[in-house]
Formats: sequence, C-alpha cells, structure tokens
Amino acid sequence: MKAYDLILKKRQGLALNKEEIEFLIEGYTKDEIPDYQMSAWAMAVFFQGMTPEETAYLTTAMVNSGETLAWNEIAGKVVDKHSTGGVGDKTSIVLAPLMAAAGIPFAKMSGRGLGHTGGTLDKLESFQGFRIDLSREEISKNVNEIGVVLSGQTADLVPADGKLYALRDVTATVESIPLIASSIMSKKIASGADAIVLDVKVGKGAFMKSLDDAVKLSEAMVDIGKRLDRSMTAVLSQMEEPLGNMVGNALEIKEAIDTLAGKGPEDLRELVLVIGSYLMVLGEYRDNREAAYEELALLLDNGKALEKFKEMVKAQGGDIAEVDNPELLPKAKDVIPFTASRAGYVAELDALAVGRAAMSLGAGRQKKGDPIDLGVGIEVVRKTGDMVAEGDVLAYIHSNDEKKTIEAMKELDLAYVLSEKEQEKLPLVYRIIQ
Amino acid sequence: MKAYDLILKKRQGLALNKEEIEFLIEGYTKDEIPDYQMSAWAMAVFFQGMTPEETAYLTTAMVNSGETLAWNEIAGKVVDKHSTGGVGDKTSIVLAPLMAAAGIPFAKMSGRGLGHTGGTLDKLESFQGFRIDLSREEISKNVNEIGVVLSGQTADLVPADGKLYALRDVTATVESIPLIASSIMSKKIASGADAIVLDVKVGKGAFMKSLDDAVKLSEAMVDIGKRLDRSMTAVLSQMEEPLGNMVGNALEIKEAIDTLAGKGPEDLRELVLVIGSYLMVLGEYRDNREAAYEELALLLDNGKALEKFKEMVKAQGGDIAEVDNPELLPKAKDVIPFTASRAGYVAELDALAVGRAAMSLGAGRQKKGDPIDLGVGIEVVRKTGDMVAEGDVLAYIHSNDEKKTIEAMKELDLAYVLSEKEQEKLPLVYRIIQ
Repeated sequence: MKAYDLILKKRQGLALNKEEIEFLIEGYTKDEIPDYQMSAWAMAVFFQGMTPEETAYLTTAMVNSGETLAWNEIAGKVVDKHSTGGVGDKTSIVLAPLMAAAGIPFAKMSGRGLGHTGGTLDKLESFQGFRIDLSREEISKNVNEIGVVLSGQTADLVPADGKLYALRDVTATVESIPLIASSIMSKKIASGADAIVLDVKVGKGAFMKSLDDAVKLSEAMVDIGKRLDRSMTAVLSQMEEPLGNMVGNALEIKEAIDTLAGKGPEDLRELVLVIGSYLMVLGEYRDNREAAYEELALLLDNGKALEKFKEMVKAQGGDIAEVDNPELLPKAKDVIPFTASRAGYVAELDALAVGRAAMSLGAGRQKKGDPIDLGVGIEVVRKTGDMVAEGDVLAYIHSNDEKKTIEAMKELDLAYVLSEKEQEKLPLVYRIIQ
Repeated sequence: MKAYDLILKKRQGLALNKEEIEFLIEGYTKDEIPDYQMSAWAMAVFFQGMTPEETAYLTTAMVNSGETLAWNEIAGKVVDKHSTGGVGDKTSIVLAPLMAAAGIPFAKMSGRGLGHTGGTLDKLESFQGFRIDLSREEISKNVNEIGVVLSGQTADLVPADGKLYALRDVTATVESIPLIASSIMSKKIASGADAIVLDVKVGKGAFMKSLDDAVKLSEAMVDIGKRLDRSMTAVLSQMEEPLGNMVGNALEIKEAIDTLAGKGPEDLRELVLVIGSYLMVLGEYRDNREAAYEELALLLDNGKALEKFKEMVKAQGGDIAEVDNPELLPKAKDVIPFTASRAGYVAELDALAVGRAAMSLGAGRQKKGDPIDLGVGIEVVRKTGDMVAEGDVLAYIHSNDEKKTIEAMKELDLAYVLSEKEQEKLPLVYRIIQ
C-alpha cells in the first residue's frame, strides 16, 4: 500500500477502506508517512469529504494510535460530555459535581486550551492549591470516594490526533466536518466514555457559525459514536452571546458556584440541566428525562450539588473557604462600568467580541505556556433583548491594567449593538440530535 | 504575509495576487515555506484552479527562482519547441538541423527524462562519442558556426519547478492544468525562448488522454506565453499510436536520419514540417507558413537537412560514419517478428502498450540514473487502419534478452486490436491554438 495512491483515491472522491485508513494513520503516527502527504490528503478530504464509514474508521484508527482509559471503578456506563467551545462556557464545572450529587460517577479529563479565557483546568486553578495533575491512582480514589474528579490527562491519548491537528492547523485544513468530528470523538472514546452528550455551540462565539454546519457536525459525531457502540446525544446550543454573564477564569468560577447554589444565570442553569438529564438517561441511570431534569434542579436548589463541589475542591487540594466566600478568589484591581451611549434594546451582544475583550485583559492565552491573569474578565450585565436607558451599565470590565481596559472597552463597543426596535431574547437550545 | 493565509485563500477559491504568489514560490525555494504547506496549497489548486493572471504570476515567480539564459549570439527571435511527451517522439532530432538548414539558429536544451525510452539526449548518445554536456562557450560556438545544438542544461534553470514538481509527484497533485502549464512554460521562458511552438500530444500514449484536456492545457500555456510577451502556437497532435514506426533509442535515431534524408514515415515528416513552418513564421523569419512548409520539405528532400545534422553530430563529437551508415549504430542481438493471429484491420495500436513493451526491453529508465539499452526497442510495421493477413508481421521486437522479449510480446498483444471492420487511419494534427 502506498500513501500516494490513497491521496489520489481521496482526491478522486472515492472512499478509503478500513485497512487504507489504518495504513495512513499508523504510518503518520510512526513518522513513516511524511507531513506533506498527510496535508495533501487532508486538503483532499476538505474538498471531497468522507463517508460515515470512513469517518468511523478514521476515529478508530486514531483511538488505536495511543493509550485508552478504562474505568473499572465505575460499575455502570461511563458518561462524558464535550463542548465544542464557546465564550463563558463553565458548564462542566457545574455539571460534574451535580452528576455526582445524583449518584452518577463523573470523571472528566479536561485541558488547559487556548482561547479567550483559560480552559476548565485553568479556571479551577483559581482555587488556591487546586491540583489538576492527579495521578491515575488519585483519580480512581476520588471517583470511588466522592464520585467526581476534574483532572488533566494521565495518559498519552490519541497521539495521531495531536499530530494531525497540529498539521491541519498550519495547512488550512481544520474546517472539515469529518476531520473535526473524528478528532473530537477519538478523544472521547479513548477517554473510555460509553455515553456521550455533545454540546455543539452555534453562533458568533462558536467554531460553528451556522446552525446548518452545526447540524452536520453533530450528525457526523453522533453517527461515529453509534457505529462504535456508544450512546450519543448532541445538544445544539446558542453561542451568539456569552453563556451566563461571566467571561474570565475566577469570574466564571464564581458564577459556577452561584449556579451550584441554585442561583446563577438562567441560561447556564438550563444548559446544565438539559445536558445532565440527557446524560442520566443516556447512561441508563434513569428512565425518564423530564424526571431526571427535575431531580437535578432540586440538587442545585437544596445545596447538595454545591456540597459535592466542595468535596471535589477539597479532594483536589483546593481551599473550600473560597467556595464559601468567593470574594477570596483572585480578583482584578479595577472594576470599570461600560455604559450605554443611548437608550434602546440590546439587538446584539457578540460573544466573540466579548471573548476578545476578556483576552485583551489577559484572561486567555494566545499560545501554549502563556501566563493567564485569573482575576480579570468581563461581567456582562445586559444581554440580547434587554431594554436599557442611556448611561445604564451594560457590562463591567474587571481589569488590572488601564491600557488593557481601553482595549477591552473598544471590543465591547463592537460587541454591543443597540437598537430602537424591541428585540426578543435568544433561545438557548436549538435542537437535540440523537 | 503568511503561507497559511494564502493556502486558505486558494482553498476558498480566491485568486492570489502577484506578491502572494511570489511570496509562496520564493519562500518555498528558500526552504522558508515547508513542503506540507506547499502540498496543501497544490491540492487546493487542484480543486480550485488558478486564474490566467495567477498562472502567469506563478510562471514568472518560478522563472525568477533561478538563472535564465540569454542568446546574444542569435540576432533574431530565439525559437523553441516543446513536446508534452509521447511514444516514439523524435521530432526535435529532425527539427533542429532542419531549422538550421533553413538559416534559423536552433539551440535546444533537452533532458534525459524518464519513460518508455530515453529522452532526446539519451537517443543522441547512440552516436559514439556524442557529447550532450557542452559548456556555455561550446554551445555559443556551435550556434555561431553551424546554427544548431542539442545539449543538456548548462545553468540551474527554474529550481522552484524542480522542487515543486518533485513534491507534486508524491502528493497526487500533478494533474492540475495551471500547475502543468506553468511548469512547462517556466522552463521554456527561462531557456530564453521568444517564440515557442508547443507540441501537445493527445491520446493513450500521452499525458493528456482527451482532446478536451489537451485544449485546456494548450490554451493555458499559450495564454501564459502571451502574457509574458512570447509568440505562441500550440499544435495538438495525435498520440493514440506511436509517432513514426520506431520506439527505442538507436532505432529512433535511424528513423530520424531517414526522415532527414527525405524518407522516413509520413506522420513524423508531416509533424516536423508543421511545427517547423509555424516556428519560422512565429519567429518572424518568414511571412507565409505554407511557403515555409514547402521550403522545409525541400530541405529534407535535397539533403541539406541531413548535411546540417552531420555537422551537428560532428561538432558535438559524434561519429558521422554512423549517420552515413546507421547499421553501425547500437543494435539488438535478436529481431523477433510479432505476427497477426488472424486477418483483419488494425483497429487500435495502443501507444502506451508499445511504450511499455520498449520499456520492458530496457529502452527506458524507471528512475533517475538507471542504465538504458540503446539498441533495443519496437519497430512498428502496421498501424491503425492497415489491413493484415493472418501471420503478417505487425511489429519487430529488437531485444537482447529472451525473457524480456516475452514481456514485450505480452505488451504488444495488448497493444494491437484487430477487427474485421475497415478502419480509417488516424489524423495527425487535431487543432492549432494560437
């Protein structure tokens, strides 16, 4: 078998078979197939697509390129959740302890990630002493004892994906539905998940800008999972404006704590309950989704979820005094109001521009290893559909640097569009794909 | 400027501007842009094409990547001819001395090439002592004194093309009209040609299998040349069956000598006269193409062209006794007839299969540096449209090895299709594009 022939076959619009896909991925992982052939193949995939079978073969081949996790400490199905990424997305931080509070073990491997704010792990490091580099033994112990852990990777999962993604990133071949779908799914499957809820974000602040594209990606991922005997649900959720009100690391932790205490913004609470209830049914821990939803809502309202969160923070070395009193978390020197220049309705609140504002304050990193300022960020006060008077506060800028404040201000100017016309609030969930 | 953005732009179907193309080609030539980005770009070009402007920018950028030749010893326009390659194509070997006999200086840089037989230079090395590695000074001297030279490259022409072609060759991105057109044209332009006749072969034995594709390639090349102020003509000629009767190195030299002596096969003579007469008019050495055609025909018939050929062979160190008596040229041990298994008409004579037969005898090389057997090859006796009786000789196999003879026999079996139905002879020239 020769890589050349497989590139040609794909270029001609034909589907590669299982052996051919394995040959490509194995060869690439072992450096036997050079980058220049893989990038040509990826570009051919961009134009010709992949069949569902082919995409599943690719996913399996990538899973087989490295280690996989097994969760012997979990008796039932291993549930997991993945978000395609958005601005202000702290869903996992609320969801993990909430699931554990419902008696469903939840061990999620997360990353630091690049972007407008840090990843889930960065946010959790807002707690003094919080450890995200747990050993496999510690993870196992925490799952057994408290039922929840949020940690970094312990194993070399899906090295083929790491290598291929880095190549796609510099050859303009990222934006291919089958390549994105297999990249995401290979990591979930290597992590040992049996039941997976995908939170596919749609809108200005998301990778998928249109509902059409998000549906295609969701269908591709659900299809891969089903072909590989996983239980799958995709929740297509709105990311035109930020999720919740807080965008920034410690700010998002505060909002997660609020939500775990039965308060917090309505959209975040709702998304957590929707995803959580689908996970419970998908993992065969409950029969009825509506009932599961109500059960989870109660666990937020009666303090059980927050209690579980404190157990998790404590078990991972964090300071639970900061959970009880979030004012102790890192915070910015200055909190500057950003006000409405005229009266009207918020016609648009561009999540991406809010993300850039947070980024310009230092909340995120542009490249691996960059430092993050945990205290800074944007606190959104008014969202799409809200009526405002001239001079009303639209958002607060939490900043440690005046120059950066000005940058953030400029981005917020772009983010908010006011209109005289009344404007409806945005929906949260567009569609469920199973 | 970033290579990533240029790949993305092309992927999106947009045209790159002059500076962007220059950035890509300069960067690639200097190893600043890696292979994996160039191959992704090439695959995007395969799918999205290039505008005529873009293709001309690419050609110029490639020309500028290395040295260029100037022909100060030639007072008028420098004429050149390029064939896209076929089986039995010895046109240049006849054309070069013929042009010189008409008083038009003709200095052609050729290559050894891979394929079913050697390239023009390999064929010429059938003459004992013939030197193809002339210095720039020797070339200049020969052009001044006898008006003709057929030599290898003296300069590092178009290194970008060499590098890019090698990459395309292993990434399934060769078959792109703008990339093929710019590759060919960059070499012609760097060689210093002012007036160029392109012999674009069409059919089973050619790179372009269909007339449609050949027209597209011809138009692209003629367009590039005109944009860069060259006088251009493309002759689209038939390559379903071999050109002339001889396929093999010394065999083709013999046929070239025959043709230079006013004999030789009709199709080869005709193609030489067509290309030559267009070159004379294109180079502004004559006004009237029909008259030029007659003039050249006379030079073949009156021995002047052959005389010029002998001057060239002598000037390049060859033995002219071998011109006078081609039986002295390298020849194979055995000459085995390949006969018709039944009576009928030759419905098809597949040039590619004849090429493979010659290759299997050792007439060509599979990779650079492979040795070539100059004496072996196929002598075609019957061509498409000819009537044959059972047992008639269709072709002779000139072989030095019995095993290889059997291989060649198998290929000839595939090459010849006999039919009971009468069959017309194939046309030679399909179309002229200017």
